[in-house]
Amino acid sequence: MVHRAAIVGAGHTRFGVLPEGPRALLGSAVRQALGSVDRAFEPSAVDRSYLASLGFGGWQIGNSSALLAEELGVPGLACVRVENACASGGFALHEAVHAIASGSADLVLVAGLEKMTDVSNARRRFWLGVSGDTEWERQAGLTFAGVYGLLASAYLDRYRLGREALAEVAVKNHENGALNPNAHFQKRIEREQALRSPRVADPLGLYDCCPVSDGAAAVLLASTETAKRYTDTPVYVDGIGAASDRLAVQERAELTGFEASRRAAETAFRSAGAERGSISFLEVHDCFTIAELLALEDLGFAGRGEAGALTLSGATRRDGRIPVNPDGGLKAKGHPIGATGVSQAYEVFHQLRGSAGPRQVPGARSALTHNVGGAGATCAVTIYSVG
Amino acid sequence: MVHRAAIVGAGHTRFGVLPEGPRALLGSAVRQALGSVDRAFEPSAVDRSYLASLGFGGWQIGNSSALLAEELGVPGLACVRVENACASGGFALHEAVHAIASGSADLVLVAGLEKMTDVSNARRRFWLGVSGDTEWERQAGLTFAGVYGLLASAYLDRYRLGREALAEVAVKNHENGALNPNAHFQKRIEREQALRSPRVADPLGLYDCCPVSDGAAAVLLASTETAKRYTDTPVYVDGIGAASDRLAVQERAELTGFEASRRAAETAFRSAGAERGSISFLEVHDCFTIAELLALEDLGFAGRGEAGALTLSGATRRDGRIPVNPDGGLKAKGHPIGATGVSQAYEVFHQLRGSAGPRQVPGARSALTHNVGGAGATCAVTIYSVG
Repeated sequence: MVHRAAIVGAGHTRFGVLPEGPRALLGSAVRQALGSVDRAFEPSAVDRSYLASLGFGGWQIGNSSALLAEELGVPGLACVRVENACASGGFALHEAVHAIASGSADLVLVAGLEKMTDVSNARRRFWLGVSGDTEWERQAGLTFAGVYGLLASAYLDRYRLGREALAEVAVKNHENGALNPNAHFQKRIEREQALRSPRVADPLGLYDCCPVSDGAAAVLLASTETAKRYTDTPVYVDGIGAASDRLAVQERAELTGFEASRRAAETAFRSAGAERGSISFLEVHDCFTIAELLALEDLGFAGRGEAGALTLSGATRRDGRIPVNPDGGLKAKGHPIGATGVSQAYEVFHQLRGSAGPRQVPGARSALTHNVGGAGATCAVTIYSVG
Repeated sequence: MVHRAAIVGAGHTRFGVLPEGPRALLGSAVRQALGSVDRAFEPSAVDRSYLASLGFGGWQIGNSSALLAEELGVPGLACVRVENACASGGFALHEAVHAIASGSADLVLVAGLEKMTDVSNARRRFWLGVSGDTEWERQAGLTFAGVYGLLASAYLDRYRLGREALAEVAVKNHENGALNPNAHFQKRIEREQALRSPRVADPLGLYDCCPVSDGAAAVLLASTETAKRYTDTPVYVDGIGAASDRLAVQERAELTGFEASRRAAETAFRSAGAERGSISFLEVHDCFTIAELLALEDLGFAGRGEAGALTLSGATRRDGRIPVNPDGGLKAKGHPIGATGVSQAYEVFHQLRGSAGPRQVPGARSALTHNVGGAGATCAVTIYSVG
C-alpha cells in the first residue's frame, strides 16, 4: 500500500446493559477518541468516516452512517455503514485503511455501535441468529449458541477432550475483564463455577457464552505523514487480511476450525511481512469459549487440537508466552456486535502505547486482532505495531 | 489516486415484481457481469467483493456479503456489505475504487441486491420509511413519499411553479424505460395521465413515485493495468465524491436542495479534474420526480429554481443537450434499493461503450452518476469516461 495508516486516537464506552441510547453511546465514544489525540486538532480535518453496526440499519435507526457526521459535529462528512455481522468493526477498519492507502482520505474515523438491550422483543430475537446462516439454520430453529455448541461438540469429540479448556478460557478472560473498567463483567470466576453453570447449548454452559451488550467504540486513523502531526506514538496498521466461507456451517468441509480465519490470517501476515513469533499479544473473537480455541489454531498460534493444552498451560494468560484477550475478550468485556472489532483496535492502541493500566501486557510492541462474522462466514484480521 | 479503477464487466437482472428469490437474482447479475467481460478470465482472479443491500442484513438473510463468494463460486473471497440506504450501491462502488487505488485489490466485484416484494408485511412496512430519519420522522408517521411530498411542496412554492415539470420528468423517464428491457415499467405515459394520477403525498401523484422493485446488478472493476488484459474499452472511474447531511429533513437549513449532493458533486468534479460541460449524460437519483429536479440543480446542471424549465424544454431527454436517466431512472426502471447505485454504473458501462441499444445516447464519452441515501442524508457521486 502506498500510504500506511496508523491509529492516532481511540474511544470506548462502558460495555454492558446501559441506560444510554444509541446516539449518546456513539457520541461518547467519538468524543473520547477525539479527546485522546495527543496534540490538538480540528474535527473538521476528518475527511471520511465508517460506522460498523448490525442493528443500526433497517431495524433500528435507518441510514445510520449519517449519524456520525452529526455526533462528530462535522457537517457534510462522507459517512459509510459497513455491516458484516459480528465482524462489522474489523471490516469497517479495513475500509478506512484502504481509503487512506488510496490517498483518497487522510484522517478517517471508524466507530462501532450496538444497542442490544432495551429494544422490543420482536427486534431482540434477531440477535439470536441473525449473524449465522438464515435460510437453512436460523429458520430451522438453530440459535447462534446452538451453532457454536455443535462446533464445540465436534471439537471436543475429535480431539477427545473434556470441557476444562473451555472453562479455562472463561476463567482467564474474566480475570482480564476484572481489570478493564469498560468490561461488561468485571469479576473473576472459578473454573468449577464455569464447569457447573447451567447448559445453554451443550456442551456450552452459561460461562462459555459472551453476553448481550450495549456499547460503542471509535478509533481515528491517519496516514503516517499526518499521524506524526498529531502524536509521537502512532500505532501502525502493518497488514490486513479478510476472507469468507460458506454461510451455512453444514456446507463446510469441517467443523473444527474456520477456513476464513486461516485465509485472513495468511493474507494479513503476508501483507505485514510479519512472523507469528513477532506478535506480542492477540485479540481474538471469543463469542463463545470454543471460538478462542479455534482462533488460536486457525491463526497459527497452536497446532490443530492443541489450543486446549496451550490454554490450560497458562500461555495465553496476561503474563503468559502469548497473551490472548487482555481486555477480557467478548466473553467478559461484552460483545455489542458492531462495536467489537473497533473495541479490539482500541485495546491494541492502548496496549502498544503502554497505557492499558493494570491489564497492560508488559513490553507489547505488536498485536493481531481477529474479528469473526457469524460462525466463521467472514473474518477480518489486522496486524499492528508501534514504531 | 495511485491505481485508477475501471469497469470491465456489468450484469443486470430485470427489475420488477419478480418470482425469483434473492440468491437467484444475485447469481444472475453476477454471472452476467462475468460473462460480459470481453476476454476470458477466471473468477478466482477476483480478489475482493462488496454487496450493497438494505434488506439483506438483519431482517432478511444475515451476514449476507458471504453470499457473494457462494454465488461467484470463489471460496474464501473477501466480502463486505455496505449499507447507506438507497445510496448503498454508489458507496459500495467507492469502496471498491479505494481497494483498487490502494493497491490492496486488483479485480473487485460490486453487486447490489434487493428483494422488496413477496416478503412478510411486517418486513415490507420497513420500506416505507427505513431510509429516512427514524427518530423524529418515521416514528411520527412520516412515510418516505411524505418526506419527498414536503420537499416538492416547498420547491413548487418557493419558485411559484405548478406540477407540470414533475409530470414531465415522469413522461421522459417512462419514455426511456420503454426502451430498456430491464425496466420495471416499459411503457410510455402521457403528461395528462401523470397530472391526473391519484395523489400519494401531495403534490406527488402515483406517477411521481418510483415503484417497489426486486432486482440485482453487478459490475466488475479492475485497476487500469489489469483492465487492459480483459478489454480494449474499459470504462474509467475518473473521480468520486461523497457527503452527508442531517438525517432529519426538519433539521436542515433548507428544503429545496440537498447539501450532500452539492458537496459530493464538488468533490467528484475536483477529483476527476472534469468540467460540467464535458459530461455527456447523467444518471440521477429520481426516487420521486421532484428528486430529479433537485439533482439537476444540486449537481450544477441547472440554476436554482431552473430545473423545471430545463426539463420542460426537452434538454434532459435522450436527444437533448444533457440527457438525464436514459435507462428510465428509478422512476421507470425501478428502485431495488441496494441495486440502484450499481445499476447506474451498469448503464454508464453500456452507454460509454456504445452498447446501450435503442436507448443509446449518441456519442456518449463521459457520464456522472448520483446516488442518494434517504432524503439526501448521504450521497455518492461518480464521474466516468471511456478512453
